[in-house]
Amino acid sequence: MEQQQGRDARGAFVAIDWGTSSFRAWLMAADGTPLAERRSDEGMRHCAAAGFETVFRRHVTALGGDGLPALICGMAGARQGWREAPYLHTPTRLDALGAGAVQVDIDGDVRILPGVAQASSDEPDVMRGEETQILGSIEPGFTGLVCIPGTHSKWVRIEDGAIVDFTTYMTGELFALVAEHSVVSLALDKEVNATPDSPAFAAGLAAALSGDAALTSSLFRIRSAMLLGFADRHDGTAKLSGLLIGSEIGDAARRHGRQHPVRLIAAGPLARLYETALTHAGFTTTTADAELASRRGLSRVALTLWNKRA
Amino acid sequence: MEQQQGRDARGAFVAIDWGTSSFRAWLMAADGTPLAERRSDEGMRHCAAAGFETVFRRHVTALGGDGLPALICGMAGARQGWREAPYLHTPTRLDALGAGAVQVDIDGDVRILPGVAQASSDEPDVMRGEETQILGSIEPGFTGLVCIPGTHSKWVRIEDGAIVDFTTYMTGELFALVAEHSVVSLALDKEVNATPDSPAFAAGLAAALSGDAALTSSLFRIRSAMLLGFADRHDGTAKLSGLLIGSEIGDAARRHGRQHPVRLIAAGPLARLYETALTHAGFTTTTADAELASRRGLSRVALTLWNKRA
Repeated sequence: MEQQQGRDARGAFVAIDWGTSSFRAWLMAADGTPLAERRSDEGMRHCAAAGFETVFRRHVTALGGDGLPALICGMAGARQGWREAPYLHTPTRLDALGAGAVQVDIDGDVRILPGVAQASSDEPDVMRGEETQILGSIEPGFTGLVCIPGTHSKWVRIEDGAIVDFTTYMTGELFALVAEHSVVSLALDKEVNATPDSPAFAAGLAAALSGDAALTSSLFRIRSAMLLGFADRHDGTAKLSGLLIGSEIGDAARRHGRQHPVRLIAAGPLARLYETALTHAGFTTTTADAELASRRGLSRVALTLWNKRA
Repeated sequence: MEQQQGRDARGAFVAIDWGTSSFRAWLMAADGTPLAERRSDEGMRHCAAAGFETVFRRHVTALGGDGLPALICGMAGARQGWREAPYLHTPTRLDALGAGAVQVDIDGDVRILPGVAQASSDEPDVMRGEETQILGSIEPGFTGLVCIPGTHSKWVRIEDGAIVDFTTYMTGELFALVAEHSVVSLALDKEVNATPDSPAFAAGLAAALSGDAALTSSLFRIRSAMLLGFADRHDGTAKLSGLLIGSEIGDAARRHGRQHPVRLIAAGPLARLYETALTHAGFTTTTADAELASRRGLSRVALTLWNKRA
């Protein structure tokens, strides 16, 4: 938690990104400048037991934001969250997010932004939180693709500032399951993470992008390659990472083609892996910081809701 | 455990299928008839701690097989098993299995059959136990495909009784991981298993066989479909099963074409699911019982090793 007060700016609203396993809140000035920050692991899963309001009040007070309006995005708006904020349905303009916010039934003006659903029986899909990151990281009128890697990676097609369609990939979740619980875990050195310049990452990526083999067989070959002396445990994690990320990006390329620019919303080592992988796959990409994207998205909506712009 | 003695036949050898998590042993007559059986969950994983010889001796004595030669297939021959039986390498004739057996260093004639490795840096793969099932379920000179579904499903191409190449799919292991540990578990009713005539199984199968979407996105859509009211938890397991089995069979079809007959080595509900799926995918298939296949494969080798045929 950082405190950046004393800048001669007054808090105008509180912005909160409330995910499944994380909580981040900022005291924001009227011009969208963050004045103070709180972060914790009190995500939706934690709060389902501990209570959302208690966690909310404690952090808002610590931020010095008591009495200010608050805007929340993420899983706090899920059915099993604090207060359900019904999904907007694709296609949807991103500037419709504010109008879709629901008021939480407590003292003060506390609103939760809706997620977005693709209510198609063939390709049903859902997001909560990513829509706010997209709003915070694209220019109005943007046309192209957005990739938000993570536990449940999203690929989102945007036309003139509207979400047209999107696809979720269980890339991060499968990575964790396979690396920790499957027979492949015996072929990995958990101390050695994938890096963008690892030959094993490039090999996994190339194999998956070629689409020549099913993922369920490529994964097993990580173990076989080690048993037969073709690979080292040192390289296992990078190979696994390359295969899973390549499978996601290859599918997105087949679905959308490669002619669109990709806005990557990510941070840290994962951003570096995806930048390399996207370039490998023939995409042109620019990266936006994931946390900044959430904060900016929340600010954009807050400024329209409460007219606090100077 | 059943006892089928008193048939006026004498035991000639002991046949053992010793897997990762299961142990099955039979007292066999000289003509390959099983006289008595033992089964337990003392697989390789258990025995790595408990000791292989203790488990072996106890079951052989209970079978009335003390002093008889014994032949073992499966993970007992792995590096981390009882005694390593080095892999035969593809392409390999199945009648080479007996010559590749290694003697265990204890009193008596106890031998472990080798597994088979595909020692290719592009497509490394390994099997232990399935080679014996194949020997026990194909006619000499068989040409075609063998499919052995399970935790690590095998697809094996056979030409004139020799293993030419093969591929392992982590179908069963991924099913268990996703059904028990992933976000998709929230969209499944664990009491309701997949059945061959379930529309959700057929839908999952068709989606995966079409190859239109990455498995990592199709899996997430099981959850999204339920959240958005397009699917019921009742159907979740069947959908998951259809997607994973379809992904495996679709890959095998792309790899080998559909012109070859498929010998399916399986049993019970899994055999029924695969029969349906293979037919759906355009394969002609005949089923051989998995356990019978192991026993027959062990018998065929034993009879050549010890010349016990009447």
